[in-house]
Amino acid sequence: MATTLPLTDVSPARPDEAGACCSPLVREAADPETAVELARVFKALGDPTRVRLLSVIAAHEGGEACVCDLTEPVGLSQPTVSHHLRLLVDAGLLAREQRGKWAYYSVVPGALDRLGALLTGAAG
Amino acid sequence: MATTLPLTDVSPARPDEAGACCSPLVREAADPETAVELARVFKALGDPTRVRLLSVIAAHEGGEACVCDLTEPVGLSQPTVSHHLRLLVDAGLLAREQRGKWAYYSVVPGALDRLGALLTGAAG
Repeated sequence: MATTLPLTDVSPARPDEAGACCSPLVREAADPETAVELARVFKALGDPTRVRLLSVIAAHEGGEACVCDLTEPVGLSQPTVSHHLRLLVDAGLLAREQRGKWAYYSVVPGALDRLGALLTGAAG
Repeated sequence: MATTLPLTDVSPARPDEAGACCSPLVREAADPETAVELARVFKALGDPTRVRLLSVIAAHEGGEACVCDLTEPVGLSQPTVSHHLRLLVDAGLLAREQRGKWAYYSVVPGALDRLGALLTGAAG
């Protein structure tokens, strides 16, 4: 996805003479498709209720909690909580498992670390 | 900030008898104020252009780039790019330093790791 536009064509006034500007790229940045995907995941976390839910689940033993334990900490109805949880599952941050009548949610191990790595190229 | 509502008051049908539900809290979840703050930072990243900008900066040598190097990768005007960069600075993800006529942006070391730690309690 690399553009073929030479950098020198777009920034003729760049202060090359200063020496400090224009440090070279040392790795590849996230491509536009990856950026869209990452932004989608971060957007799922851009809501205080969802941050609280993920945090409460992570604070439970084993990083897992029953939906029945999640309504009280956020003070919302179970349908509303389930809606928020679904967005976190869709974003790949939580896993959902149905056991009998209850749904259990667990934090996907390493999901947040992977986000950071994709973003800053630490894994690339 | 702990509520005094006994858990048993809000979820009378919880499947205690199954043994698997209602795992205990093993650490404190992010409190509501922290959740609001974290959500604000994640929201700043909930935009593909800002993800690209952060990623491009991180891909530069030393994790730092001149604003003059950032317009071309995202294909936007410098005022628009500066606006997005300001939001990332406000969120604590980037640091900005003016040198002569150019502004340089660098990734705040550990900012993303700290987010994850605050969220999942790994640092708490």
